[in-house]
Amino acid sequence: MDREKLAASRFACGERDRALFEAGIKMGTIYHQYVGTPFNETTRKGLEEAMESAISVQPYVESVRIRIQPDDRKGEDRYSYRSLTGEMIDAVVTVRIGGASVTAEMRFDPELNYPLMYVSSIGTD
Amino acid sequence: MDREKLAASRFACGERDRALFEAGIKMGTIYHQYVGTPFNETTRKGLEEAMESAISVQPYVESVRIRIQPDDRKGEDRYSYRSLTGEMIDAVVTVRIGGASVTAEMRFDPELNYPLMYVSSIGTD
Amino acid sequence: MDREKLAASRFACGERDRALFEAGIKMGTIYHQYVGTPFNETTRKGLEEAMESAISVQPYVESVRIRIQPDDRKGEDRYSYRSLTGEMIDAVVTVRIGGASVTAEMRFDPELNYPLMYVSSIGTD
Amino acid sequence: MDREKLAASRFACGERDRALFEAGIKMGTIYHQYVGTPFNETTRKGLEEAMESAISVQPYVESVRIRIQPDDRKGEDRYSYRSLTGEMIDAVVTVRIGGASVTAEMRFDPELNYPLMYVSSIGTD
Repeated sequence: MDREKLAASRFACGERDRALFEAGIKMGTIYHQYVGTPFNETTRKGLEEAMESAISVQPYVESVRIRIQPDDRKGEDRYSYRSLTGEMIDAVVTVRIGGASVTAEMRFDPELNYPLMYVSSIGTD
Repeated sequence: MDREKLAASRFACGERDRALFEAGIKMGTIYHQYVGTPFNETTRKGLEEAMESAISVQPYVESVRIRIQPDDRKGEDRYSYRSLTGEMIDAVVTVRIGGASVTAEMRFDPELNYPLMYVSSIGTD
Repeated sequence: MDREKLAASRFACGERDRALFEAGIKMGTIYHQYVGTPFNETTRKGLEEAMESAISVQPYVESVRIRIQPDDRKGEDRYSYRSLTGEMIDAVVTVRIGGASVTAEMRFDPELNYPLMYVSSIGTD
Repeated sequence: MDREKLAASRFACGERDRALFEAGIKMGTIYHQYVGTPFNETTRKGLEEAMESAISVQPYVESVRIRIQPDDRKGEDRYSYRSLTGEMIDAVVTVRIGGASVTAEMRFDPELNYPLMYVSSIGTD
């Protein structure tokens, strides 16, 4: 049996449910692997791409787009870098397993006052 | 509207699907927040409890049990601490949202040869 | 040759300089391993202790004291946990190598407006 | 007083000692921020560059070179990505504060059997 079928056999659920679960894993990974990373306006784009790459190599990821809030503070000195926080992250990840696809998003929600991770769409072929 | 209803309103799915998604978030958090943490046999139990606490304070977590593989190497010196890897983690987390509960597990799978995160049961009242 | 002497032989400097370097490693570890960790007022003490344990198992650490800023916000609901940031950490670590000891500290510095890591004392027997 | 002088005033030591301390911070940052990051052979170069960027934006870093051990395992499937471990990292960082420069390195040391962080040279103008 190949590894993909073997992995599937461990689950107490089907493809649609697994896609929801995998989408959650990706959200937790984005937040907890990268929060605290030092960056500045010059390296921000590169950090976004590195985060997208890390997510895209994982199983079942169909697409991923990550943006980090630009810094609008004025002035630059030796200490003007930032540490990534959850509030700065805007992420959209689509996971596909077989005929099921799930899109999850994360961004700061002003009404809730924290960075919300949520499922924005579910599709089945 | 309270924050719980407000959060729910952001989702394109119901409680059962959200519980699957949240269970995935918790798995990603356990792995990516703690891998790399230094510990030894004396502090292992404390690390397990700290990881359980961090997961249990998050929304919708009904129960969590985390164990780290004991170290069976002989000998002790100044360098005999370990860094936590995914292969050492054994975790079982149950998430409940309304009438839906999902249990997810993570542990090294010898046949797959990597630490698998999977859904082990789904319940609806 | 034992591992301690072997490690020492890799360094282009003596014990006092190594103690300064090791103190820096511990500061970087505290910040980058734990920033992002979920906790609330109930689990705060346990997180402080887990961080102290992780540092204390590493080579040459003589003492470590870590405190996390209490949360003075009112009200509690399902979302009232926090994610650890560097600004919340107050850490004092003393490293000893042979006859040299170095104490390093980290805490938010209001004048600098960021969490400063610095050497607060150096001693040689 | 500018921020750089203000920061210097917090230290109980001079530029050479501070450079040793800062070099240690960078080593701890490289290890504890990135261990656990998912990558594969296609994204490895990008991860190295992202790690270098994160270190280079921090104060007093003169140069940084990070390499990740290539993967020589054969075969590729959906699960063939890796999680970064300390053993895979080869890093060389030079910190300069005023007239003092310190180069620190990290890589797996086969004799010690763990990834050693050490000071490889100290220079003063």
